[in-house]
Amino acid sequence: MKYTTDYKRILELFEENLPKQFGDGGFNTLEKSMEYSLFSGGKRLRPVLMLKVGELFGADFNRVMPFAAALEMIHTYSLIHDDLPCMDNDDLRRGKPTNHKIFGYGNAVLAGDGLLNLAFETAINNITDKGTLTAAKVLSRASGRCGMISGQSADLYFENKEATKEDLEYIHKNKTAAIIRSAFEMGGHLGNATTLEIVILVEFANAFGMIFQLTDDLLDKYGDEKTLGKTIGKDEKSSKSSSLYVIGEEKTRELISTEHEKALNLLDKLSVNTEFFKELLNDTVSRKM
Amino acid sequence: MKYTTDYKRILELFEENLPKQFGDGGFNTLEKSMEYSLFSGGKRLRPVLMLKVGELFGADFNRVMPFAAALEMIHTYSLIHDDLPCMDNDDLRRGKPTNHKIFGYGNAVLAGDGLLNLAFETAINNITDKGTLTAAKVLSRASGRCGMISGQSADLYFENKEATKEDLEYIHKNKTAAIIRSAFEMGGHLGNATTLEIVILVEFANAFGMIFQLTDDLLDKYGDEKTLGKTIGKDEKSSKSSSLYVIGEEKTRELISTEHEKALNLLDKLSVNTEFFKELLNDTVSRKM
Repeated sequence: MKYTTDYKRILELFEENLPKQFGDGGFNTLEKSMEYSLFSGGKRLRPVLMLKVGELFGADFNRVMPFAAALEMIHTYSLIHDDLPCMDNDDLRRGKPTNHKIFGYGNAVLAGDGLLNLAFETAINNITDKGTLTAAKVLSRASGRCGMISGQSADLYFENKEATKEDLEYIHKNKTAAIIRSAFEMGGHLGNATTLEIVILVEFANAFGMIFQLTDDLLDKYGDEKTLGKTIGKDEKSSKSSSLYVIGEEKTRELISTEHEKALNLLDKLSVNTEFFKELLNDTVSRKM
Repeated sequence: MKYTTDYKRILELFEENLPKQFGDGGFNTLEKSMEYSLFSGGKRLRPVLMLKVGELFGADFNRVMPFAAALEMIHTYSLIHDDLPCMDNDDLRRGKPTNHKIFGYGNAVLAGDGLLNLAFETAINNITDKGTLTAAKVLSRASGRCGMISGQSADLYFENKEATKEDLEYIHKNKTAAIIRSAFEMGGHLGNATTLEIVILVEFANAFGMIFQLTDDLLDKYGDEKTLGKTIGKDEKSSKSSSLYVIGEEKTRELISTEHEKALNLLDKLSVNTEFFKELLNDTVSRKM
């Protein structure tokens, strides 16, 4: 099966099952604001990656789905808070007005809090054995102060300060790559991957996450606002933590190429069929959105 | 042992162990802003309640401590976000400038996110059996869209709208009582309380949480800013969800009295020594801070 067809198959399964994972029961304004951002489409890259890894390593879809949903909830909350006027101050996300533009500042803070909390509620309610417990541990670490939130904090810190190459690596490693890495790691733990296989998955994810961030920086300069569904050219205006600013465009493209080769080599070390990830990788290197 | 001496004993154990639960490893700004609010003193009511219930039902201190710390992290994050300019816009908390006054708006959002995430990281890392898994489930539900965050959302909604008695009950039940209730429920599950005992604990907690909120509303009118360490008179100015506004002062005092009696009766149904909670209850009814 072609990778894009396979991606679409998993994506559809995910979208179909997400409402069930989301559930209901909260105060009306909170529900509406959480729903608005969680069900606004998007590529669903992180959950699709986790579901695919889980599948390759023999995990049932229903076993992986709650954790894939939890990861997407965390990704979504981070976008809501990142878009706030006190952070990136963005008006457009996934082609629609950002959460605070629709529901107001206070409600957007709460929508983010609600999705972060719901992510853990979903994960905890699905802990049934060692694999699921480990997946929940990986999730909580990746999204927290030893991962994504520290990346956000560092990104905010360097918005108006000169970042070194090391600072930039710290931001990329934590802000973007930690969550992508956790998708692979959780997929492996939920399936029957060996410790060695999980190490390889994590190394691959590091390279993939790096490529994803670097191509994102390029897209911020060369991308099309309509295709991307978000405001572009922001990095140049406000953030000094773009790789284009810190190491320059040529070195950025070189780094993408090095990481690409490294990532392909890592895939060859896995015994499962990694065609999906090879094609995804090639696609990401030359992505337009 | 007198209740205040016993409270102090548990509080000291909690304060002594909290840094270990907090850990380290994040980006410097994030760490400092999280630390600033988590280690700013306060009554530590919720963790002390949980530790006391756990102790009464035979749970080891080290078993309860991570969950008590997690609950206090959640309480602290909710205060940081609640104090933001887009929410209650408070300058003073526990006698010190609020988090965003010191670290700025964006960092305060992240400090809250960081503490919420750390709460679940701490809880999940301490799941070892059925009791600890149940405690983590109770925590995630109480703090989420079926608890605290919905209470916050409703409170924000009714800031400039007329709330009915039912709306007010909804806010109290969720915004304040849900977390207090979870302290009792988690303490029971971490100890060896029976299902019936947990039901009684939860009912007691509901009454206690109600009294706590109602006396808080009274304190907002009659309290002393210096003793309380926070801005008072805010409800009258900005919020219409105070019980004084909705049902009036006389009915508020009547309700406190009814709930007080109900709570004392519930304690009599427990087989453990409930002297601590009886005295705490009497103290709360006539509290000055």
